Amino acid sequence: MKDTAEMYIPTLEDMLAAHERIKPHIHRTPVLTSSYFNDLTGAELFFKCENFQKAGAFKVRGASNAVFGLSEVDAAKGVCTHSSGNHALSLSYAAGRRGIPCNVVMPRTAPEAKKAAVRGYGGTITECEPSTSSREAVFAEVQAKTGGDFVHPYNDPRVIAGQGTCSRELLEQTDGLDAVIAPIGGGGMISGTCLTLSNLAPEVKIYAAEPEQADDAYRSFKAGHIIADDAPETVADGLKVPLKDLTWHFVSNHVTDIFTASEQEIIDAMKLTWQRMKIVMEPSCAVPLATILKNRDVFAGERVGVVITGGNVDLDKLPWMKS
Amino acid sequence: MKDTAEMYIPTLEDMLAAHERIKPHIHRTPVLTSSYFNDLTGAELFFKCENFQKAGAFKVRGASNAVFGLSEVDAAKGVCTHSSGNHALSLSYAAGRRGIPCNVVMPRTAPEAKKAAVRGYGGTITECEPSTSSREAVFAEVQAKTGGDFVHPYNDPRVIAGQGTCSRELLEQTDGLDAVIAPIGGGGMISGTCLTLSNLAPEVKIYAAEPEQADDAYRSFKAGHIIADDAPETVADGLKVPLKDLTWHFVSNHVTDIFTASEQEIIDAMKLTWQRMKIVMEPSCAVPLATILKNRDVFAGERVGVVITGGNVDLDKLPWMKS
Repeated sequence: MKDTAEMYIPTLEDMLAAHERIKPHIHRTPVLTSSYFNDLTGAELFFKCENFQKAGAFKVRGASNAVFGLSEVDAAKGVCTHSSGNHALSLSYAAGRRGIPCNVVMPRTAPEAKKAAVRGYGGTITECEPSTSSREAVFAEVQAKTGGDFVHPYNDPRVIAGQGTCSRELLEQTDGLDAVIAPIGGGGMISGTCLTLSNLAPEVKIYAAEPEQADDAYRSFKAGHIIADDAPETVADGLKVPLKDLTWHFVSNHVTDIFTASEQEIIDAMKLTWQRMKIVMEPSCAVPLATILKNRDVFAGERVGVVITGGNVDLDKLPWMKS
Repeated sequence: MKDTAEMYIPTLEDMLAAHERIKPHIHRTPVLTSSYFNDLTGAELFFKCENFQKAGAFKVRGASNAVFGLSEVDAAKGVCTHSSGNHALSLSYAAGRRGIPCNVVMPRTAPEAKKAAVRGYGGTITECEPSTSSREAVFAEVQAKTGGDFVHPYNDPRVIAGQGTCSRELLEQTDGLDAVIAPIGGGGMISGTCLTLSNLAPEVKIYAAEPEQADDAYRSFKAGHIIADDAPETVADGLKVPLKDLTWHFVSNHVTDIFTASEQEIIDAMKLTWQRMKIVMEPSCAVPLATILKNRDVFAGERVGVVITGGNVDLDKLPWMKS
């Protein structure tokens, strides 16, 4: 993305164009229901299963939109990003599909399994130290050397337009919803949800769910301006990053409320979902269910879409295992 | 089931009637595909996900057919069985739906989670010692006292007709298959598969997959008569039971071949499926994939239905965890 003086806010047309562009490269993931969880919550829940998505997470939507939207000239130089998580996998996957280079700066301490997955999709990893200063320095170097297009994990209109395709499918797959709830970290999924629902179904309430131990979005939302956390620690490792200007725009304008859950509540909801729905999902995905269980009065009687954001977990280090 | 002098072999009509009877009580489970596993095996695999089934396993098909096929008079006395596994849960679920008593004899050493699930569905547990003699004595007592209809976990024509509905759906959900493979323990799922495919798609080959350490069906198949194992031990705990006369009838007449896999091959295939397909499934379900990976030449280029039989696992004791 080129730097521009003014922030570009993606539109409904951007989201619709993104959907056409990425359809050949993504799954239209299924929506699952569970009578057990309906009984437990008093709500009617519709789980949008992005854990079954290509590369294992919704992030492939935004990454594919960025990659396949590049001109031939720009694409030849490839793409680059910094991420230790699903965005790294997703951008590598999308670049691999288009056959262009993808350079990812990852901390040397990132899990070997994630690094192997990036390489498996054809991405090139440059390692940095696990600090912001090292990451920024190494990334600047990689970008200067390759000239690749920087695809930010979430603060990028192309990425947000791509993530918005998820709730468009959810609307099509359900027969009317009262609310949608998704986890919030940097705010890419929530911003895409806001983009789509505020245009296509403005009556649907949008809730964000966040770990208590990384509640910068919650505090920002209550304060009315961005408050960034300093290195939060949570089992929901996809949700540690802060809001940025573009995602703050959507959150501050369209989100109805933000709820938080404790570490134990997240782990309990995660394990219960694995047990009852037989799906493998990341800790981050359990935060919405954990907050629904805590706020029954808000959700009871409502038809609620719940975004299961990804399924890339380390099966040797599940959070309920004794270490 | 009343004892009869001659064994009754369920027919296509029994299976079709079963399907109509149980449809309100079961899920039509989805069929998932995986480009990763297609690449890995050279085959085109269609995973029939009975881990998403009601009560967490295909066994609810046969159990529901038995329960909902009872006359009002017989139903009033309820049903009974002995099982420490998915049949106990499934029969309790079905009886609960019909509102009739369900008595289950379970070893006192059975996992507390399984006992809690049986009780959760409304079943009554009578505990026995973990030996065949104790189980038989206690079960005879329970049956005499309650007068309940005995629904055997697999050697029962009603149960086999019910299990046959799974491959009927699989045929409807796929556009032509060359083969179907399912795990084999007592042979209920395989017999139902034989019943359905031999009538509706006799060109489709039927393979059974079995743990090396509980290979009684494999040895029976090669010998031409039933050979029962003496207390086999395998991580695929749903597959320890032996063939009986009715399931042997189907296996000996309709199965193309039986393949086996080692404990480590089963665990590896299980973990790989969780990682790549993001589904929670039992060790037993991994045996087919493990044997496909070992017998590439048999399956390469074929369109193969793979039955994922159930998802009731103890998340605190996964087989790749160090104990």
